[in-house]
Amino acid sequence: MSESKTTLPTAQRQVIYAKRPHGTPTLDCFRIATVPLDTPSEGQVLVRNDVLSVDPYIRMRMEEKDSYAPVMAIGDVFVGRTVGQVVQSRAPGFATGDWVVGRLGWQDFSVAAPADLQKIDLAAAPATAYLGALGSTGITAWVGLMEFGRPQRGETVLVSAASGAVGSVVGQIAKLHGCRAVGVAGGAAKCALVREAYGFDECVDYKAPDFAAALARAVPNGVDVYFDNVGGPILDTVLPLLNNFSRIPVCGLVSQYNATEPYGVKNLREIFNRRVTMRGFVLSDHKALWPEATRALAEAYAAGRLHYRETIAEGLENAPQAFIDMLAGANVGKQLVRLRPD
Amino acid sequence: MSESKTTLPTAQRQVIYAKRPHGTPTLDCFRIATVPLDTPSEGQVLVRNDVLSVDPYIRMRMEEKDSYAPVMAIGDVFVGRTVGQVVQSRAPGFATGDWVVGRLGWQDFSVAAPADLQKIDLAAAPATAYLGALGSTGITAWVGLMEFGRPQRGETVLVSAASGAVGSVVGQIAKLHGCRAVGVAGGAAKCALVREAYGFDECVDYKAPDFAAALARAVPNGVDVYFDNVGGPILDTVLPLLNNFSRIPVCGLVSQYNATEPYGVKNLREIFNRRVTMRGFVLSDHKALWPEATRALAEAYAAGRLHYRETIAEGLENAPQAFIDMLAGANVGKQLVRLRPD
Repeated sequence: MSESKTTLPTAQRQVIYAKRPHGTPTLDCFRIATVPLDTPSEGQVLVRNDVLSVDPYIRMRMEEKDSYAPVMAIGDVFVGRTVGQVVQSRAPGFATGDWVVGRLGWQDFSVAAPADLQKIDLAAAPATAYLGALGSTGITAWVGLMEFGRPQRGETVLVSAASGAVGSVVGQIAKLHGCRAVGVAGGAAKCALVREAYGFDECVDYKAPDFAAALARAVPNGVDVYFDNVGGPILDTVLPLLNNFSRIPVCGLVSQYNATEPYGVKNLREIFNRRVTMRGFVLSDHKALWPEATRALAEAYAAGRLHYRETIAEGLENAPQAFIDMLAGANVGKQLVRLRPD
Repeated sequence: MSESKTTLPTAQRQVIYAKRPHGTPTLDCFRIATVPLDTPSEGQVLVRNDVLSVDPYIRMRMEEKDSYAPVMAIGDVFVGRTVGQVVQSRAPGFATGDWVVGRLGWQDFSVAAPADLQKIDLAAAPATAYLGALGSTGITAWVGLMEFGRPQRGETVLVSAASGAVGSVVGQIAKLHGCRAVGVAGGAAKCALVREAYGFDECVDYKAPDFAAALARAVPNGVDVYFDNVGGPILDTVLPLLNNFSRIPVCGLVSQYNATEPYGVKNLREIFNRRVTMRGFVLSDHKALWPEATRALAEAYAAGRLHYRETIAEGLENAPQAFIDMLAGANVGKQLVRLRPD
């Protein structure tokens, strides 16, 4: 048990879910509240959140209807993972100053139980890596690719949103397993990053007018694994390029989250023709794989073979705009928000 | 080696692929040719085809582009399975009078090698059953449901084209495995047949104006396996009813075979939300499962627990119209064509 009460304020800020969006969220869907600082009960700790992870799945929690997880109620604190430091501990095994990661919400401080927290090692990697390539983002990429993509040496792995936090890791794992890694990203700059920073063999710009033809040229042996982060028209363009017995792990449909009318996918017939397995997955269903994924990612990072980029907004009050921009693809790599000026 | 030359004609008829259809095939896509009767070489047999199986997959062989199998060339004899009798044998193990089934084409007689033929037992079931519930149709149902649907006792299995040759067997196998079997079929008469002749718990008419609401009512516990024969708008209606971790074996997309513009499926997001596995399959990829499937079907039939219906057209010359009608859903159960008047 340890405390450092003298440094703590009596109030903290939270980002509150204020209004359900229609299509693209707007700033009035968010509200900043100032509330008294909670204190931990016996068996709990108080965490000062340092950096907040802003992820596409949060858009689904803003729907009217539950998706794979329940939607947020108006008035809820926004969900999201943070890294931070324990500032008060009434739980065994946690001491003031410990660095932790957990789904602690869009707020300056969080009261949490040990089961909600994982300690992280800042000697091995920077704190923010545990929200990205070495955290749930990287694990998502690993589980989706290795468990549901099942890539074989020499196969072609195609990834959408390839410059994004998940996509960039997918391609790097594919390369580590002897595959051809091809990305789809929006714009020449992102495509260059995917090739140069992440080492993909090719990256195709979906905003270019000849996208379909360019994609076909980039996968001369067809596609064996399509790791889908976006759904919609890009999926439709990929379907005719699939090989027999190919796999589509569906990690998300970011192209559809803000859509008021869903896109109709026309080429599903290829699922039958090519005997494709398309499978949706959500990381929380596969906790048994986390230790293996975490080990593999840490090893790749330690060996200098796992690279990542971050876009960091400053200040809790700017989290809503960072989230809106991230859904529009304005970020490069993992979108984060730093809550404390250093 | 055995022969019965005296009964054989010198010429035979074939149905030839004459013209590629645009949308629904028309009669001028077919042509009847009269050709000299082939004679078997050493190691071959001559089969007089008795009954011809007319199946949706043949529409795919009429495309411009290969689907899971190569398309037919103009001038080819139509592909299709038949049952018939050996009338000349130059192959060991086959004698005149043996009943066989094989993919022998739309023609009165076929020269075939033993590897292309399976002997059938008319003491166990009528010849036509080996084209349907006890043949590749039934095996398709068994493999799709058991291998890719993986139904568990108490789960809900939903089947489209439920009154059809494959769909009706799917529901009966589902019942044998302790599942709730729900069908989708076109019109009140077919729905009544599905419930009464095949013993499904429910069948919903997709042509009725309240289809979506009626389907939701018919699956109060959601859908665990959707055995899809049709794709298109029915798939779109089913997607929001799927349970977490449900499975969609895709056996065909009969709603799309005649479509000049493919239907755009809007609710694919549920694949992600519900962590669905959607998987296309083609029977010929799974030959290792045929013996087990054949055994299971024969046992169910012998026990009086596998029922089927047939729609039989008379005469090779009427096979094209029977095929066109079958694609429009005019048949009840398996669509067959009897080639020889008895």
